[in-house]
Amino acid sequence: MGKQAIGVVGLAVMGRNLALNIESRGHAVSVYNRSREKTDELIAEYPDKKLVPAFTLEAFVESLEKPRRILLMVKAGEPTDATIAQLKPLLDKGDILIDGGNTHFTDTIRRNQELAKAGLHFIGTGVSGGEEGALKGPSIMPGGQRDAYDLVAPILTEIAAKAPDGEPCVAYMGPDGAGHFVKMVHNGIEYGDMQLIAESYAVLKQVVGLSNEELGKVYTEWNQGELDSYLIEITSKIFGKKDEETGKDLVDVILDRAAQKGTGKWTSQNALDLGAPLPLITEAVFARVLSSLKTQRVAASKVLEGPVAKPLGAERDAFIESVRRALYFSKVISYAQGFAQLRAASEEYKWDLDYGGIAKIFRAGCIIRARFLQKITDAYTKDKAIANLLLDPYFRDIAKNYQSALREVVIAAINVGVPVPAFASAVAYFDAYRSERLPANLVQAQRDFFGAHTFERIDKPGSFHANWS
Amino acid sequence: MGKQAIGVVGLAVMGRNLALNIESRGHAVSVYNRSREKTDELIAEYPDKKLVPAFTLEAFVESLEKPRRILLMVKAGEPTDATIAQLKPLLDKGDILIDGGNTHFTDTIRRNQELAKAGLHFIGTGVSGGEEGALKGPSIMPGGQRDAYDLVAPILTEIAAKAPDGEPCVAYMGPDGAGHFVKMVHNGIEYGDMQLIAESYAVLKQVVGLSNEELGKVYTEWNQGELDSYLIEITSKIFGKKDEETGKDLVDVILDRAAQKGTGKWTSQNALDLGAPLPLITEAVFARVLSSLKTQRVAASKVLEGPVAKPLGAERDAFIESVRRALYFSKVISYAQGFAQLRAASEEYKWDLDYGGIAKIFRAGCIIRARFLQKITDAYTKDKAIANLLLDPYFRDIAKNYQSALREVVIAAINVGVPVPAFASAVAYFDAYRSERLPANLVQAQRDFFGAHTFERIDKPGSFHANWS
Repeated sequence: MGKQAIGVVGLAVMGRNLALNIESRGHAVSVYNRSREKTDELIAEYPDKKLVPAFTLEAFVESLEKPRRILLMVKAGEPTDATIAQLKPLLDKGDILIDGGNTHFTDTIRRNQELAKAGLHFIGTGVSGGEEGALKGPSIMPGGQRDAYDLVAPILTEIAAKAPDGEPCVAYMGPDGAGHFVKMVHNGIEYGDMQLIAESYAVLKQVVGLSNEELGKVYTEWNQGELDSYLIEITSKIFGKKDEETGKDLVDVILDRAAQKGTGKWTSQNALDLGAPLPLITEAVFARVLSSLKTQRVAASKVLEGPVAKPLGAERDAFIESVRRALYFSKVISYAQGFAQLRAASEEYKWDLDYGGIAKIFRAGCIIRARFLQKITDAYTKDKAIANLLLDPYFRDIAKNYQSALREVVIAAINVGVPVPAFASAVAYFDAYRSERLPANLVQAQRDFFGAHTFERIDKPGSFHANWS
Repeated sequence: MGKQAIGVVGLAVMGRNLALNIESRGHAVSVYNRSREKTDELIAEYPDKKLVPAFTLEAFVESLEKPRRILLMVKAGEPTDATIAQLKPLLDKGDILIDGGNTHFTDTIRRNQELAKAGLHFIGTGVSGGEEGALKGPSIMPGGQRDAYDLVAPILTEIAAKAPDGEPCVAYMGPDGAGHFVKMVHNGIEYGDMQLIAESYAVLKQVVGLSNEELGKVYTEWNQGELDSYLIEITSKIFGKKDEETGKDLVDVILDRAAQKGTGKWTSQNALDLGAPLPLITEAVFARVLSSLKTQRVAASKVLEGPVAKPLGAERDAFIESVRRALYFSKVISYAQGFAQLRAASEEYKWDLDYGGIAKIFRAGCIIRARFLQKITDAYTKDKAIANLLLDPYFRDIAKNYQSALREVVIAAINVGVPVPAFASAVAYFDAYRSERLPANLVQAQRDFFGAHTFERIDKPGSFHANWS
């Protein structure tokens, strides 16, 4: 019996679907799961596929060609460490572990360094696209030893999603934790996108008064233009879905408590560590948290009054277009923040990230796939060193032409008491970023006054302290 | 020679001033510093004070009454661990280490537990008030073993600031890291306060067109009313300060790049971990970070246009009053978030924090001291279990009467392109908190659509998944 070019450890839905994806490209795949049942189930379900089961890690490792390529699809955290510890004594120098789990990038940096000491390669790989993406083609963000990546690149390239121009959505991100870091920022951006869409929904429903049917049409129409994206597409479909039990529109039956798995939080916490302003995504994370305080909100709604909403009159269609522009411009601002975080990380961790390449692999397979990502790639192609996407001519034009709509929508929402934390944060970021002078001089004066923390001057370099009293 | 009741390790400005503060209450104080020079300087400067120098840790420890009380005022992090490691073999069971440094509360939890195994007590203590507070009376936030606290309480009580009603600003916060945690949230709140004042300054200057002289008068006047606080007081004085070199108003000479020491960041990162919405303080942290990108902002200001500011006409005075109300209501919202974080932490870490007591010890000595803290104490006295300060009748009335002013100011700022991230975040939080229904149902629908993450229903408990396609 021949040996396999690759094996998968961990046969929960993501691992199993990635194994099937690899197999569908013509490769035999060794498969192993800690509990035997999942392996048996998979083989029973697909008896004709070139899936080669192993029931011990020893047999699994033995079944692979050298250098071995092992895709770990186990739970992030301790289970991953435990699996690596079991595998390590069975491996030979030059073997390659690929962690496709939802791992914090600092764990990936640590594992990469520890395994390197034993001559083993470790490719921490972001995989986006959910179950379906795993099966049919995800967006793949690998980081680790470059020469080891080259040995797994052919297979990863085959299984990746293909962008509209046919390019596979996989690229080498950089050393050690770069792949999982990019995936983390992808997820933060996803939180921002979803919150912005939710706010557009709230405004269209509560300010304009659109029905679910009208909302479905609006998002369907928006999906034909510059907002064209997977999330807008599924949003348009959501408004058409009926609840099978009650016959009502399902969206109205769903409880308004947003859950989360923590990657948005990681993105915000890292941005705080890096000193990279990420207010929009962070507002989105906090908006989910606040939504989960449903009991408190219901109680508060009974005692905290707000303004009375005035329904829109004849200017309805124009306002809907303003919401569309507000959404698009806010999305631009959110990505500008996320990509600025990537830049800060690339400098801090010495990764030399290719920002345009990252936007490219987001174009298909992943949750934030969207037509507009091409504009980001274009911006970095024109100027790799651009400090902030808002400075690129295309995005500058969006800012110029759409900012009045964003201001209009935020003002309308504030006037009628509809919360738009992410839209409002977008305006504040835009206005702060383009401010030659901010009131931070007062903050510095205060800090020097109460704590002798010193300040800088506008007219010469150095640190200064005033005798304030 | 008799032994001393307390000793201080670390004679940088905070340690030295606390030693002088203790001495001024009639106690002899042992003092030790790693490098001898600081000790010699202190003794030379105050030859008549009851400061007893020690030049080895052994002699220092030997000079103290048992159980020994040792106030550590060394740099947070590794230097603190190193000092503890050196002290530990010299100490006896029941001795008490008091860490008055700027320590992350998780380090305090760890040290408290490690030292407890050796029978040593560890009181992690927040100290707020800067150099002057340390000397004359800081606000003190101790946490750790309750019985050990009782042994240091008399001295801490003597040296603490006194509130207007004469009560000392010190109280037992809770076990292990509770003291340093409260100090961290104090600092986060301080970031929020400072950013809100900075935004009021920006609006008064750029929307109303006030001169520095007029600004000084406005803040002086505000300091007579419900905004009465140390930060408003020093703000009013800042606008009257001339630069000695150029003769210009100093505030205009100070560079608008706000620095930070990281405690605001910690507060936001912890809020994200706890799932406690803290958007306003987090916007304040990011506002400092964004201000520090001065070079980028100057470049952006040349290419990113905004609206043209329209000067205010006859309604000037009314608008200034609106800014005052916006500032006060936003401050209320910021504290509501900060105290909700304390509640979440108290539950998570099992600290049983006394929220009203915490507001009480903030009333003097610390940077955020303010008349309005009494209102927080009053609210918790009325209802210790109140979920959010906004639900208290006093704050509810502020919300009712001041929200239109806050909306007006944010709208005016957005209209003229003045960034007000914290004001805008305050409105969004208020409107979200009082929303019975948020658009988070759409977020849940999207998550279930793309990732089968399931959703809850409004009409029955459980987790549900829809077949969306």
